[in-house]
Amino acid sequence: MKKDINIKEVARKAGVSIATVSRVFNNSGTVKESTRKKIEAVIEETGYYPNVLARELAEKKTHLIGLIVHNMTGEGIPRTINGVNEVLEENQYNLLIACTNGNIESEMKHFEIFRSKRVEGILFATREFKEEHRDLIKKLPIPVVVLLQRTDQEQISYVAFDNYTFAKEATNKLISLGHKKIAFIGGPVTSVNANERQQGFMDALKENQLKVDNDLNRNGDFTIENGYCQMQEILSFNRDITAVIAVNDGMAIGAINCLQDHDIVVPEKVSVLGLDDTVLAKASRLKLSGVRYSYTDLGKKGAELILQQVESTEPFFEERLIPYTIYLRESVSSPTSE
Amino acid sequence: MKKDINIKEVARKAGVSIATVSRVFNNSGTVKESTRKKIEAVIEETGYYPNVLARELAEKKTHLIGLIVHNMTGEGIPRTINGVNEVLEENQYNLLIACTNGNIESEMKHFEIFRSKRVEGILFATREFKEEHRDLIKKLPIPVVVLLQRTDQEQISYVAFDNYTFAKEATNKLISLGHKKIAFIGGPVTSVNANERQQGFMDALKENQLKVDNDLNRNGDFTIENGYCQMQEILSFNRDITAVIAVNDGMAIGAINCLQDHDIVVPEKVSVLGLDDTVLAKASRLKLSGVRYSYTDLGKKGAELILQQVESTEPFFEERLIPYTIYLRESVSSPTSE
Repeated sequence: MKKDINIKEVARKAGVSIATVSRVFNNSGTVKESTRKKIEAVIEETGYYPNVLARELAEKKTHLIGLIVHNMTGEGIPRTINGVNEVLEENQYNLLIACTNGNIESEMKHFEIFRSKRVEGILFATREFKEEHRDLIKKLPIPVVVLLQRTDQEQISYVAFDNYTFAKEATNKLISLGHKKIAFIGGPVTSVNANERQQGFMDALKENQLKVDNDLNRNGDFTIENGYCQMQEILSFNRDITAVIAVNDGMAIGAINCLQDHDIVVPEKVSVLGLDDTVLAKASRLKLSGVRYSYTDLGKKGAELILQQVESTEPFFEERLIPYTIYLRESVSSPTSE
Repeated sequence: MKKDINIKEVARKAGVSIATVSRVFNNSGTVKESTRKKIEAVIEETGYYPNVLARELAEKKTHLIGLIVHNMTGEGIPRTINGVNEVLEENQYNLLIACTNGNIESEMKHFEIFRSKRVEGILFATREFKEEHRDLIKKLPIPVVVLLQRTDQEQISYVAFDNYTFAKEATNKLISLGHKKIAFIGGPVTSVNANERQQGFMDALKENQLKVDNDLNRNGDFTIENGYCQMQEILSFNRDITAVIAVNDGMAIGAINCLQDHDIVVPEKVSVLGLDDTVLAKASRLKLSGVRYSYTDLGKKGAELILQQVESTEPFFEERLIPYTIYLRESVSSPTSE
């Protein structure tokens, strides 16, 4: 491919020394404004640097924010990215995204890459926030905001959903409707958010003197198919449950499909609630009950927070939880039989 | 926030001139290997550059590929990204992603940003590939591969789905089953892929001497709700259609819901086919018929192609279409009444 022209040629064309060009490039030392202009003109003309970088040189800012995510599957992360993008654009910042599949080496590497590309701040979403993450982030000279996960007592800013609380509240709603035998289809044990929801469910039962039956408190993999299988397992243990909570819509729909295949009417015999509000909830004919929380808003709040930190001279920490609403639709009713 | 140390200090610590450091940085001119090592040591020690960049200096390569997408909504783009990531990782390349919402200024800007960040190649997905895109790409000194869209006669490489052909083939399948009155729910006129599918549908009708009725050939917005409304419109014009093709699963499910609300049995009275194979197809109890094509494979092929171009000394162009399979499930049958 065509070779880029190098700094030597830029210096020659501008009639200055390489050191001067590099001073302009690195914003180190002082350079006469006229000289800077001359060099930037060459930069423009030769396309040695694109305009963006020329602008950066003038402003001494890159106006770049990095976003590291652990995956792209599901609706959550893409919606979060849209929210982040929206706010950054309003503020004339640009976003670079990296997808790591959640392995820590890849995450470390991408923090490095973003640093080397001179981003001014980093938004970080990982499967499970670990000590290594904390230690790395504390060493970084640029601000980091963790998305979609609490970093409690880490003195690291985050924007997250209040998974524990809304799962507990949703469970209490079912209990207040009269449900006593409630099954739970959780996520993989590796999912922090799913675990928080499961904990909220279990604590709600305990606080209502209802026993947590491990056969009815399961861990699935978020898919419709697995929701179906988990429900089948639950039924094999106990057929007089009156409600099921699934940690996401996919498994809730799988559970409904399974119940219907066993001629168990939803919600008359068994109520179903998914701790989620995705497009899947709309796809199922039976209007699924669930919890509404906006990934887009989470992304926006995350972007606002990172920009505040980038612009603040003193580092500061802030924890933000995104509001939610629990809504009961066709798939939930009071138990008609015990 | 803590200020980075600048090139002057690096030069001082390494006991060399700024010009030498910048020569190493820019791979311009020659630098004694021992000197390069000394400078890289300082780089390591001071953290002036993260290791990544130090490695880049040694290798004279950034091992970075840029991906520009126009949105993150739906399953397609995220799956494509996963495919791209997989192949790049296998080849020790890293991916930086930018999301533009499809406006051309933002796209141009991100090409610039990626250039300034020294990516070695760019993968590009846009809503509609225009002349401005072609002109920009032809000026770039690095290779570009367009994803999810043909760039015909542009001499620009692409990896895309064969929308026109599979839509035509799917329509012919319905016709061969005996369907003569077939409605079509297309996408927004701004969607090139949706338009190609609509064209394939219309050409299939024409080639079978079936008339294209504009009332039954509509443009929706990809949502379940809109699929429902489009179907209602179609029924208001004509109740003796025997099949409906929707350009995506969401609108196909909306159409099924609408038909069922009008007590029109699927598929006995009306067959429904979505030119798609998303998680939504699994969510609907009635197994939806459709077309299977892998966004992940498309992403992989795109990554392979850009790496070949990055590594080739001569620019070259290649056009790749991703294979597909049409599958008929519960939602499609022969018409039982005409």
